[in-house]
Amino acid sequence: MKNILLIILDGLGDRPSEELNGKTPLQAAKKKNFNFLAAQGMVGLLDPIAPGIRPGSDTAHLSILGYDPFSVYTGRGPFEALGLGMDLKPGDIAFRGNFATVNEDMVVLDRRAGRIEFGQKELAESLNMEIDGVEIFVKEGVEHRVGVVFRGSGLSPHITDVDPHKDNVKVLDSKPLSENAVKTADVVNKFVRKSYEILKDHPVNRKRLMEGKLPANVVLVRGAGVVPSLENFQKKYGLKAACVVGVPLISGICKLAGIEPINVPGATGTVNTNMENKVKYAIEALKTHDFVLMNIKATDVAGHDGKALLKKEIIEREDKVFEPLLNILDETLIMITGDHSTPCSVKDHTGDPLPLILVTKGIRKDGVDDWNEISAKNGSLRIMGKDVINILLNYSDRAEKFGA
Amino acid sequence: MKNILLIILDGLGDRPSEELNGKTPLQAAKKKNFNFLAAQGMVGLLDPIAPGIRPGSDTAHLSILGYDPFSVYTGRGPFEALGLGMDLKPGDIAFRGNFATVNEDMVVLDRRAGRIEFGQKELAESLNMEIDGVEIFVKEGVEHRVGVVFRGSGLSPHITDVDPHKDNVKVLDSKPLSENAVKTADVVNKFVRKSYEILKDHPVNRKRLMEGKLPANVVLVRGAGVVPSLENFQKKYGLKAACVVGVPLISGICKLAGIEPINVPGATGTVNTNMENKVKYAIEALKTHDFVLMNIKATDVAGHDGKALLKKEIIEREDKVFEPLLNILDETLIMITGDHSTPCSVKDHTGDPLPLILVTKGIRKDGVDDWNEISAKNGSLRIMGKDVINILLNYSDRAEKFGA
Repeated sequence: MKNILLIILDGLGDRPSEELNGKTPLQAAKKKNFNFLAAQGMVGLLDPIAPGIRPGSDTAHLSILGYDPFSVYTGRGPFEALGLGMDLKPGDIAFRGNFATVNEDMVVLDRRAGRIEFGQKELAESLNMEIDGVEIFVKEGVEHRVGVVFRGSGLSPHITDVDPHKDNVKVLDSKPLSENAVKTADVVNKFVRKSYEILKDHPVNRKRLMEGKLPANVVLVRGAGVVPSLENFQKKYGLKAACVVGVPLISGICKLAGIEPINVPGATGTVNTNMENKVKYAIEALKTHDFVLMNIKATDVAGHDGKALLKKEIIEREDKVFEPLLNILDETLIMITGDHSTPCSVKDHTGDPLPLILVTKGIRKDGVDDWNEISAKNGSLRIMGKDVINILLNYSDRAEKFGA
Repeated sequence: MKNILLIILDGLGDRPSEELNGKTPLQAAKKKNFNFLAAQGMVGLLDPIAPGIRPGSDTAHLSILGYDPFSVYTGRGPFEALGLGMDLKPGDIAFRGNFATVNEDMVVLDRRAGRIEFGQKELAESLNMEIDGVEIFVKEGVEHRVGVVFRGSGLSPHITDVDPHKDNVKVLDSKPLSENAVKTADVVNKFVRKSYEILKDHPVNRKRLMEGKLPANVVLVRGAGVVPSLENFQKKYGLKAACVVGVPLISGICKLAGIEPINVPGATGTVNTNMENKVKYAIEALKTHDFVLMNIKATDVAGHDGKALLKKEIIEREDKVFEPLLNILDETLIMITGDHSTPCSVKDHTGDPLPLILVTKGIRKDGVDDWNEISAKNGSLRIMGKDVINILLNYSDRAEKFGA
């Protein structure tokens, strides 16, 4: 029985890039360790959700960890809130929200409050409250963005948005879409009104008005979803599990799944993250855990920025940093792949499949010794996200026999 | 965002043919444009429904267009009727039928009325009628074949056939298989009786008797199915869609899906169809539509006739005719595949997978530069019909992100 290291290079997959003479960043990168690991094991292509489905990082990680995103993903709210590092519990209703500017008739003057650039933390903190037994938590995001969480009994996400999605019209009343959502819609409407009453005279807004800026005097919420109750990963698969993950969205999902977070000094979720430390801590965690998930965000950031050369350099850096993995192949099954493609030509996620490596001592060798999106088709694996954990259990000699 | 051209070469797939020295028609064909398009993009194999499932053109097209044939296909009747160009509405009950010969005791003397070869149109027209509020439409097909459509409220396809499927036995009574089918079975029995009364003295049959031929004096129906209500393709996928299709069966399915038919002069659905015009009209339609489906039937006809050399020549003709596609790759995503295999050695559809090409500017290149059933396995795509539209949405950069 071996331990398992699952490495997700976020947004790894790409398309041919003119900047790299028609190669993908992974094709163009010098990567002797990736190539060595590929040659020592199996190779293939992964559709994180299903062929052609364009994943978010959240839905892709859910699928790869064995949770059906179509059943646990009821709206973006909970995952936006997780991404802000908010502490969520199964059953909470969470929303995406905006600081916005309204007049005294609740007509929206600017849905983004002039893309507010200071004071968001103080404004958000002033909005934590309780309404009709429902605890409400608000946390600021980038610019005008906020996460809003409702905690209480008898709540439902089946309500309409209050955000009219355009300016110069009145804030909408949230309406229940099912009978058990009447209370939630009512609390949402009260919260929006209350946010106006609290924010209109808030010191941050008085300062903004003096500076000739639009006040952030209301919070408009949308995208309600219920925080899913994920079956505990350890119980589901019999794996004592940890994660080495910098991005709050992904560590939030791991937390919901009961996967223990390992804090790594210098792990930031940006292109400047301390990768050496991540690898060191992941290898260390394998001494006390059966399963370690490591996510490195940097390739995705380069993809979103459309920087193919930078993405290639990040892959080359990862290749160097992963050298210690060559020493743990006797006792560890390693899978290296991504959660979705983020082609530099698209600057966003796409549904193009991901190359993957599956390697440990004694595994079949597919004989692919140059690892990239194209050569990966010559390997033996052609799988979907939902297959990943089963495959990891099999090749780590941990799978239970189904039958006699 | 690109527009999408989906080209279905009907019955394209084949098996090795002795006539072609052990090659398939696609392997044997000279085809520089197909090979160029393959080399510029991704390649793979498609199971139109699922591995090993032997599709009809109808179920294959339904599946490829994103409709689950297992849920929308309740019997052959509706699709036979569509194939005859009958105008169907969701909820209609449709049957396959035969002109047959019975004696005055309703004993079947010949299920095919001597494979009747003239007068079918006049006979069919005499049978349009109304029984108990149910409108009944009859249309002639090839030889003894007819389509029969019931339109009215309270109808159900869950009835037994009246056709005994052999000669020298009495016509059967249709029986309801569920409570809500009582009325339908009753109308079927009345229609069969009525068809005898109308046809026995019909001028066409008097002429047939004088010529010593069997009269077509009854219509026997079978294969009842309900015309499905297909979710509108444009609404389902956000694609303004048109089709360039000669075969009534496929254009009928497109009509049910709300896909606009483009009439092409000279497009006949036979081996002599005007392919140049089809390509010209399809490219023209892409200027005003997001999605164009083009079906070319000729390869299927050659397959059914067992003519491997002809099938190879048709593919070579298609290769020449497709040359203009090379000029639209910047702004168009093109998929070329088939709906099913029609091996010349089998002379009918089989469940062998289909080779496919997916190409546009900037897409990954699998490096397969000789396109056929065998080399297609070296590509990166190994998909099913239900994946096709998702993949087309992804690579045309039209897919909505599922998650954040």
